Amino acid sequence: MTNIKDIALHCGVAISTVSRVLNDHPDVSEETREKVLRAVDELNYIPNTSARNLVRTSSDTIALLVKGVNNPFFAKLIKVIEREITRRGYTLELHHMDTSEDELRVGAQLTNERKLIGILFLGGRFNYSPEEMALIKVPSVFCTYTNSFGTLDAGAYSSVAIDDKQAARTAVETLVTMGHRKIAILTDNDSDKSISELRFQGYKDALASHGIPFDPNLVACTGTFSDMSAIYEATSRLIERDNSFTAIFAIADLMAIAAIKALSDHGMRVPENCSVVAIDGLELSEYTLPTLTTLVQPAEEMGLVCAKTIIELIEHPGKNKQFTFQTVLRPGGSVRSLNG
Amino acid sequence: MTNIKDIALHCGVAISTVSRVLNDHPDVSEETREKVLRAVDELNYIPNTSARNLVRTSSDTIALLVKGVNNPFFAKLIKVIEREITRRGYTLELHHMDTSEDELRVGAQLTNERKLIGILFLGGRFNYSPEEMALIKVPSVFCTYTNSFGTLDAGAYSSVAIDDKQAARTAVETLVTMGHRKIAILTDNDSDKSISELRFQGYKDALASHGIPFDPNLVACTGTFSDMSAIYEATSRLIERDNSFTAIFAIADLMAIAAIKALSDHGMRVPENCSVVAIDGLELSEYTLPTLTTLVQPAEEMGLVCAKTIIELIEHPGKNKQFTFQTVLRPGGSVRSLNG
Repeated sequence: MTNIKDIALHCGVAISTVSRVLNDHPDVSEETREKVLRAVDELNYIPNTSARNLVRTSSDTIALLVKGVNNPFFAKLIKVIEREITRRGYTLELHHMDTSEDELRVGAQLTNERKLIGILFLGGRFNYSPEEMALIKVPSVFCTYTNSFGTLDAGAYSSVAIDDKQAARTAVETLVTMGHRKIAILTDNDSDKSISELRFQGYKDALASHGIPFDPNLVACTGTFSDMSAIYEATSRLIERDNSFTAIFAIADLMAIAAIKALSDHGMRVPENCSVVAIDGLELSEYTLPTLTTLVQPAEEMGLVCAKTIIELIEHPGKNKQFTFQTVLRPGGSVRSLNG
Repeated sequence: MTNIKDIALHCGVAISTVSRVLNDHPDVSEETREKVLRAVDELNYIPNTSARNLVRTSSDTIALLVKGVNNPFFAKLIKVIEREITRRGYTLELHHMDTSEDELRVGAQLTNERKLIGILFLGGRFNYSPEEMALIKVPSVFCTYTNSFGTLDAGAYSSVAIDDKQAARTAVETLVTMGHRKIAILTDNDSDKSISELRFQGYKDALASHGIPFDPNLVACTGTFSDMSAIYEATSRLIERDNSFTAIFAIADLMAIAAIKALSDHGMRVPENCSVVAIDGLELSEYTLPTLTTLVQPAEEMGLVCAKTIIELIEHPGKNKQFTFQTVLRPGGSVRSLNG
């Protein structure tokens, strides 16, 4: 296999010059740089960075444990996280879990089996206890969730998330401001001690603060974030039970898309007969008919902070941090004002 | 930390009994099994499988190199592949690449740096030469592509893909059968020696075999599979240049969704003024308005075969195989017949 000496010989330059080009040092002329890079290409040279890796302790592997999937928002986060982890010289090991599996148990087992140096939990419960958290012996970051229902001290964990309750309140208030009072909610679950329950609470809070009575008849639980046929069915049952609502708050974009189809199949047009607001802000939702009014989570920034935080914790242990991101309303064609 | 002995003591059974339960042996009473599993749960026992892993040679890591992303079809494949790889006791390391990077170069470098035992290329060029392929020193599988434009012997690579040209022909013929003759195509690229060019060829073949002249004016190149705003723009330019077509063949579902939005914004309703057929068969496309007529790629089966094939090649080196999957037309609401 070609080595750095072959490149130097081929170009008629010193080995140290080739090394400077490959390591992106500034003190090389543009001409030499181009010559070396062309030779690297022509000779199919593959830099050997094993030596560099050996300097590191045991392993450079960070695990990404993805709980519940098929979610385009997660797909975006995964891509951003992988890029940054790799760019910083670490390796990302990927694991998917069912929503029924316990992420802490899985994380503890993986750490035990392998030489993991950190864990990114993508999706998880909001109610860890200190005893449960003690299972995780390496630095970790909760990505897209916090400990709202749990008993951890603030110094005991790191997290990167939006304020789910606040986002839900904003979504519902967007509808209230437009004159809607019969507002249904489409949620995964109303009592899962997790993201769905928090957004459900935000929905109830918003209703209460505007003097709108909560009506359990207008709650549709889908049991899933991403299985569109189940979401379609849950929406259909809601419509068949009580179609007096003028708006739906869906806690995720994919839910809203399936709901709009169910409404359409039941003769209710969006936004003429029913307004729809969601949370996520997928690119896709700007291209559906109608486009979706949705609260955008800053996926790019959130993914980057997830990666930076785990690396910071690995390189400088001990300083846990919680990051809360703001969502931004992206107006679409799925809402209509009832005001005069 | 709890060990297997603690579990045995807690349950008042032999260590070997606990082991049998944990390894799913059949010769344990249901009562004992439940007792042991409850104790495993209560005592937070984490099975230590390091010993088992140590039996293996150097590493158990298979890399998944994803080229071009943000594609829900890939997301599904990745999930299925990760499940099977993990279930079989191997580790999946994830890497994303830009479409501008060369997957063979990246794969060779990774193999060099780490102790990879196999590589799954998810997306890639269809035109490898034997010299390029020689860079890859470990078993590998081309996932979603073949070597149609390349010079590899059939025995020199393994692949899992659909017949892209045939799928495109079927899509276009679906439209021709319905009386359409002015059929536009929305493709990433018409000469990339890759999936886009193959599907473009299938489009041209189908036109030719029905005596329909090829019209370069009806070709819209998006330069991307997944950037919906670029796809929207490319479709808009097509419409503004020549809106005499009665149908569009989009080579991917996401492209079709963005195209339908562009058509709508230009006053062309689907399917009333324009029919749309695509390839992918995402679940999402069953919930758009209108639903998409699309050729379904069997993602679940394809992902499983990708994983099984790389493991087979690792455990029993030497027998390369090419798998070709059939797509199935899923009728949706995006097409209209022009026939009497």
